[in-house]
Amino acid sequence: MAKKLWGGRFDKKTDPLVEEFTSSISYDKKLACFDIKGSIAHAKMLGKCKIITKKESAILVKGLESIGKKIGKVKLNSKAEDIHTAIANLLRSKVGKVADKLHTARSRNDQVVLDVKMYTKDAIDNLICLITSLQKAIIKFANKNSKIIIPAYTHLQVAQCVLLSHHLLAYVEMLARDKERLSDTKKRTDFMPLGSCALSGTGLHIDREYVKNNLGFSRLTENSIDAVSDRDFILELLSNLVIISIHLSRMAEDLILWATKEFNFIDIDFSFCTGSSIMPHKKNPDVLELIRASVGKVGGDFSSVLILMKGLPLTYNRDLQLDKPPLFNSTETINNILQVFTELFKNIKINKTVIAEKVRDESLFSVDIVEYLIEKGSSYRQAHDITGKMVKDTLDKGRKISDLTLKELKKYSGKFEKSVKSILNAWASVSRKTSSGGTGPRGVKRQIAKWSKRLNA
Amino acid sequence: MAKKLWGGRFDKKTDPLVEEFTSSISYDKKLACFDIKGSIAHAKMLGKCKIITKKESAILVKGLESIGKKIGKVKLNSKAEDIHTAIANLLRSKVGKVADKLHTARSRNDQVVLDVKMYTKDAIDNLICLITSLQKAIIKFANKNSKIIIPAYTHLQVAQCVLLSHHLLAYVEMLARDKERLSDTKKRTDFMPLGSCALSGTGLHIDREYVKNNLGFSRLTENSIDAVSDRDFILELLSNLVIISIHLSRMAEDLILWATKEFNFIDIDFSFCTGSSIMPHKKNPDVLELIRASVGKVGGDFSSVLILMKGLPLTYNRDLQLDKPPLFNSTETINNILQVFTELFKNIKINKTVIAEKVRDESLFSVDIVEYLIEKGSSYRQAHDITGKMVKDTLDKGRKISDLTLKELKKYSGKFEKSVKSILNAWASVSRKTSSGGTGPRGVKRQIAKWSKRLNA
Amino acid sequence: MAKKLWGGRFDKKTDPLVEEFTSSISYDKKLACFDIKGSIAHAKMLGKCKIITKKESAILVKGLESIGKKIGKVKLNSKAEDIHTAIANLLRSKVGKVADKLHTARSRNDQVVLDVKMYTKDAIDNLICLITSLQKAIIKFANKNSKIIIPAYTHLQVAQCVLLSHHLLAYVEMLARDKERLSDTKKRTDFMPLGSCALSGTGLHIDREYVKNNLGFSRLTENSIDAVSDRDFILELLSNLVIISIHLSRMAEDLILWATKEFNFIDIDFSFCTGSSIMPHKKNPDVLELIRASVGKVGGDFSSVLILMKGLPLTYNRDLQLDKPPLFNSTETINNILQVFTELFKNIKINKTVIAEKVRDESLFSVDIVEYLIEKGSSYRQAHDITGKMVKDTLDKGRKISDLTLKELKKYSGKFEKSVKSILNAWASVSRKTSSGGTGPRGVKRQIAKWSKRLNA
Amino acid sequence: MAKKLWGGRFDKKTDPLVEEFTSSISYDKKLACFDIKGSIAHAKMLGKCKIITKKESAILVKGLESIGKKIGKVKLNSKAEDIHTAIANLLRSKVGKVADKLHTARSRNDQVVLDVKMYTKDAIDNLICLITSLQKAIIKFANKNSKIIIPAYTHLQVAQCVLLSHHLLAYVEMLARDKERLSDTKKRTDFMPLGSCALSGTGLHIDREYVKNNLGFSRLTENSIDAVSDRDFILELLSNLVIISIHLSRMAEDLILWATKEFNFIDIDFSFCTGSSIMPHKKNPDVLELIRASVGKVGGDFSSVLILMKGLPLTYNRDLQLDKPPLFNSTETINNILQVFTELFKNIKINKTVIAEKVRDESLFSVDIVEYLIEKGSSYRQAHDITGKMVKDTLDKGRKISDLTLKELKKYSGKFEKSVKSILNAWASVSRKTSSGGTGPRGVKRQIAKWSKRLNA
Repeated sequence: MAKKLWGGRFDKKTDPLVEEFTSSISYDKKLACFDIKGSIAHAKMLGKCKIITKKESAILVKGLESIGKKIGKVKLNSKAEDIHTAIANLLRSKVGKVADKLHTARSRNDQVVLDVKMYTKDAIDNLICLITSLQKAIIKFANKNSKIIIPAYTHLQVAQCVLLSHHLLAYVEMLARDKERLSDTKKRTDFMPLGSCALSGTGLHIDREYVKNNLGFSRLTENSIDAVSDRDFILELLSNLVIISIHLSRMAEDLILWATKEFNFIDIDFSFCTGSSIMPHKKNPDVLELIRASVGKVGGDFSSVLILMKGLPLTYNRDLQLDKPPLFNSTETINNILQVFTELFKNIKINKTVIAEKVRDESLFSVDIVEYLIEKGSSYRQAHDITGKMVKDTLDKGRKISDLTLKELKKYSGKFEKSVKSILNAWASVSRKTSSGGTGPRGVKRQIAKWSKRLNA
Repeated sequence: MAKKLWGGRFDKKTDPLVEEFTSSISYDKKLACFDIKGSIAHAKMLGKCKIITKKESAILVKGLESIGKKIGKVKLNSKAEDIHTAIANLLRSKVGKVADKLHTARSRNDQVVLDVKMYTKDAIDNLICLITSLQKAIIKFANKNSKIIIPAYTHLQVAQCVLLSHHLLAYVEMLARDKERLSDTKKRTDFMPLGSCALSGTGLHIDREYVKNNLGFSRLTENSIDAVSDRDFILELLSNLVIISIHLSRMAEDLILWATKEFNFIDIDFSFCTGSSIMPHKKNPDVLELIRASVGKVGGDFSSVLILMKGLPLTYNRDLQLDKPPLFNSTETINNILQVFTELFKNIKINKTVIAEKVRDESLFSVDIVEYLIEKGSSYRQAHDITGKMVKDTLDKGRKISDLTLKELKKYSGKFEKSVKSILNAWASVSRKTSSGGTGPRGVKRQIAKWSKRLNA
Repeated sequence: MAKKLWGGRFDKKTDPLVEEFTSSISYDKKLACFDIKGSIAHAKMLGKCKIITKKESAILVKGLESIGKKIGKVKLNSKAEDIHTAIANLLRSKVGKVADKLHTARSRNDQVVLDVKMYTKDAIDNLICLITSLQKAIIKFANKNSKIIIPAYTHLQVAQCVLLSHHLLAYVEMLARDKERLSDTKKRTDFMPLGSCALSGTGLHIDREYVKNNLGFSRLTENSIDAVSDRDFILELLSNLVIISIHLSRMAEDLILWATKEFNFIDIDFSFCTGSSIMPHKKNPDVLELIRASVGKVGGDFSSVLILMKGLPLTYNRDLQLDKPPLFNSTETINNILQVFTELFKNIKINKTVIAEKVRDESLFSVDIVEYLIEKGSSYRQAHDITGKMVKDTLDKGRKISDLTLKELKKYSGKFEKSVKSILNAWASVSRKTSSGGTGPRGVKRQIAKWSKRLNA
Repeated sequence: MAKKLWGGRFDKKTDPLVEEFTSSISYDKKLACFDIKGSIAHAKMLGKCKIITKKESAILVKGLESIGKKIGKVKLNSKAEDIHTAIANLLRSKVGKVADKLHTARSRNDQVVLDVKMYTKDAIDNLICLITSLQKAIIKFANKNSKIIIPAYTHLQVAQCVLLSHHLLAYVEMLARDKERLSDTKKRTDFMPLGSCALSGTGLHIDREYVKNNLGFSRLTENSIDAVSDRDFILELLSNLVIISIHLSRMAEDLILWATKEFNFIDIDFSFCTGSSIMPHKKNPDVLELIRASVGKVGGDFSSVLILMKGLPLTYNRDLQLDKPPLFNSTETINNILQVFTELFKNIKINKTVIAEKVRDESLFSVDIVEYLIEKGSSYRQAHDITGKMVKDTLDKGRKISDLTLKELKKYSGKFEKSVKSILNAWASVSRKTSSGGTGPRGVKRQIAKWSKRLNA
């Protein structure tokens, strides 16, 4: 059995069932390196402030550093209550009784918040990096296919022509917001809690500024009760991850649709697909389906922390222990998806011929006709009605608008000229859209250039 | 690398990133024993139906049985795509090429549903057993303290006297509904899916009835597409677990409050408490807090499956793979809580003297006074108003109702007689409540007897 | 201002902000008719038990009945705290002071549970009815198109041929489980709580059996604390509705896909579509999208009640007031969807020619070829590999399997005979699937017959 | 029936069931004023850019302004499809056919995003204002009670003494983060989407900068597809509201506990409490319970939008319509709570005598004793063990530490001096905590001053 950090008043051993039930080491071991870094800073501060001797401080620091080097290599005592206890015990076995001084002016309440904040800041840096990689992969793919025009959909019904690259840039925008959101969350996480102790601060003359600077935090928490009770940063990171997961699920859905035999816009390389145990012809985009489903995982994790936080009285309650599995799981899930999605973009082939055929569908140009009529003086509603009727008639009769004679066109509106036929093709259609943010090739090119520059900065 | 169950059309190796990302063996290994049982039944059926030879069938069965014996002991290939593949590969290495015949007239689509249904049925049996144990522990505790009267609360304000045992029986009722709900879920899970193959059934002359009987299912699924797409039983079990977790969280909350210094109704044994790393006087009910927080875990898991199921087209989609971690986690969480809660009841001591003092609070008898007046002919509202005024006056003047003279009482209502004083005590108060389902000692005794009999049946 | 049901001890008026904040009449007015029915039964019982006089009882009953007739026609006092108070006040203005006797041996705690249980039972009956209508509409549609064969999908990739009717019957199965689940929930709701009063029962000699029978409940609640604290039936109904909403969202998704230009299996009538304010050619399946999105509404409502219940100490807490908006909203949402979906099926046209073309895709028959080879003696894996290779080669070379010569076929496997060509068509493919629950036309016909009979029983 | 904004191609009337099912006017009428402002800016721009004539523009602007003045006063056509249609129809009836020109270069897709963004920005400004008011009320209350010392709790067990004001400042910190989070969300919402039209932009020569400036937006959306599909800002605001609701629920829980007879720290004024229909002595903190329960409402709303967004393909889908009820409901819920909570703080009385008695509990000083020993040279663990033993012994023997003789103290540790007794009181205990962010009176005073200044800036 592992020695506990408490017990003075206890004259009875903890029931083994309770020990197992309350143990967190199976997951909080992920905090090991942060716990050690935090303890080193704390030990240095204790020495500097003469709360322990310089020598004691040095012994603690050395002991912790040596444990730090082995983390990931040695097996942690799975019987320890938590990672903090496991490391405290390791330290004691290494440096002897002086290890007992490390917990001076510190409680697990502030220690665990420190560790999780360090984890969170680190996770955010990492996520931002991975999102940037995905953005780059998308931009690269968009750039390579910059002339491809696809039908865009609303309600999954063909709507208008857009550049494939314009469609993809929509995701780059979403991901950019995701990064900004992560940065804002990091900013609010970046407050150093150590020195709050159990909940009220301490009477020992500690130096919180020193610890803050040593650990690279920007600011100090300013209320010890808030410091030990606050899990906002976890909820906030999880809400960021929820939004990211939604973006990724939408991108996955688009690609799943595009990879169907029916849409057939893209081919995903065999190395990124899986097959069927029973149907030898199958080539399935499982990776994308698992990405889509991951919204469930991340959304569930957010709910989980939300529920456990509800109505908890101040200050610390043990409920907070269960904030960690959702945090770790969702962070890792999104991490993995970002990596696999980045690679996936290198394994997609555009079916140019198929797509070129699709954008011959003239209903894609109905808005162009409407705008043509408006420019000739129609009101929006007249133009909409005229075009609607024309679409209906041609569909009913199985004809194409471009095949109508000028005389036939004039029946719908005297405003039609021969020139209308020149707008009935995909390239003309996207080229018309010169409004800022629109799918016009020049604007899109500028956007690609802007992003390329920004992402490689 | 582990051999896959598919690949015929594939001329390229799966990307290692994809293999890792899509692998499920780290969690679906929990299905190993069900997978083997299912395969044995399938192999026997194939032999019986002469789809494979009797001899081949016997070899497969023997091979699977021998693998079954070692499950839990040997390490599974963590590189295998999933548990089904891992076992198929083990079988091949054991019995050679005949192993390839096992997958005849079966797909992973129906195989995985079979396994998860078997897991679910087994989990439900186990949960019902554990709930019964907890009910028994509560009944035992209630019976031991059958004379204790506590103040009951509404809005966390003292309301009326009740027997502690009556309060506890409320939880026994909740848990009884939980078991009934689980049974109903099991009933709807108990449909054997094998033979649905990928989604459409098979042309081979299989015998589904045989497999059903062999595996102890009650009925066959009647639509192959539904059979491979349906995850209702998972959502249903998770919703059952959510409701159970709410019950457990409420019971935990009651005990957390009762264990505070302020309420002080109970003492939890040191062996079921934990201490503080910084405050040597602390004795904390961490177990109860973790139980309370587990609603988050289970609620998150339900959300997770709900989200991933939303809007999935028929038939099978890989998204469904992610139904398993929530199912397993929540099942195990509730399993553990039920066990620890059962033990906890053996470690609670009632602080009789403290409680006896609490129920001297005369505001607990206000409804008794109201009913006294009604019996004497007051309308409910008169009685309510009179008693309200009396409570107010005595509180304002720091007096007790039982100390009022008859004359003073008569000022509030001429209906008061000396007899009213005899109802102003806890035992009289609970004894009055003779309505069925009420807290009257005779009724409660009958309830305890009923439950004791039912739970030990 | 409306008179309150309490106030005796209160010497100060409630703050108007508080009155507004705590008021529930804007939503619990939906309980009006149940509240009145419950009060009538209660008034009758009070008279029968001589707790009030027969005459008083008769006056109350008459007054309540007359209010009941006007419910829905007269405007309720929106200043009343809740529907119970509004009706109590109406009654007082109608029958005078005797109205004050109605609340004898009753609390709002048990009254509100009664009302919500009556609402729930009624809602369930209604839902079951509407689900049956939808099932009938599906069966009718399936029957009308019983010869249509469509490609079924796994991973949204074409998989195998199935009868359209078989595909639709999968939804009939889901909806049947939904009804069974609702019935089970009703069974657990069907416990009459009145007589539990605030939480402990009463000393007045009431007759709960009488009230139970009068109101058509099957059983009595057996623990007064549980009776006023229990909201399981709400959570259970909401979890049922979540599962139903998932089924409906999946059916909607299938139809959304089928209605795309790319799949083009169906045409939805203009009367069930909407257009675009800007794109005159659009015809959008908005109804289906709103159905799909409703999982969010219902899922959110379930979460909402789950969260508010978490960790509530016994007995009644005001938090429980907020259980009603989610219950009402989700019930009405699913009600509406069921009705609109039933009508929708009358407005779908199958594009037979398009579909007939789609099922010429020979990869749909790969499993048939595999089974052909197995019947000729191949092991499943050999058959899978051979067929995989054949599919790959023909795809690569742009050929069809049915165009291969026998000699070419033999290169893949000596087991191929000329007869293989006869299985390469959709009708042969579905006809082969004779296993029970499979897509074989005879089995499907039996299923349709079974359901027709059952639904019209 | 209201005229629709579309219909050109439609030769059939929409089914009334569909009209009702798809209508959103019952809730999106809340967008009326924003819709009008947006339309005015759009009309001005169309005139300025000569897409319509100056005169037409002026007529539209005047018509819209006159409608704007009556919003909230006239009843909107409840048969209109949505608020945009209702206003368009009103405009047409007011200014005639020129109204048809307003929809030029605009789609409902970008119009609705504009409206909801304007609503969101406005809502955020309002929320920040209300949070500031609540913070001020807390600071005022804290300041008024700045000398009160309460026991702080961990695990709901008495832990250490803190200033009441320090405890309350924890909530001020949380609320400050809430405001910052809202500001960040506003920053990301502040992108003007108009000009994105249906999804691709327009060929008409519009001036988006003009509209942006006119409506007070900071920036333009830069991708038209993203602009019409993005609902991040709704999810982000809802996640902010979830976190706020958790803070409010925790504060409510603290006050609910403090208002129990058992804790008895505070009295809430009768005007902010409610009574019981059956128990005349009751005075219940219903307001706080409803606040606590509102996490459910807000959490459910977040889930709702999360679920509906999952896996939606680009670009616009009708599912997005259902983002509005959760947005509006949660915003209003939190709005109301903030107001009622601010008033509540004016209606709380501190029970000074009761609290003063509570903080005589010497176990509250155990950490002070530990630190005393550390300052005398003990290691943290020795000090913890010694104090633990002392607490245990005195509890067991029913003695107080302050009554121990020096000789008795010395038995625990030779380091004890007479001086230890001077630290065994609440004021000494909090005064010791001089570390930054701790509960020391000087630091807390500084914090109050800082907040007073900041909030009144």
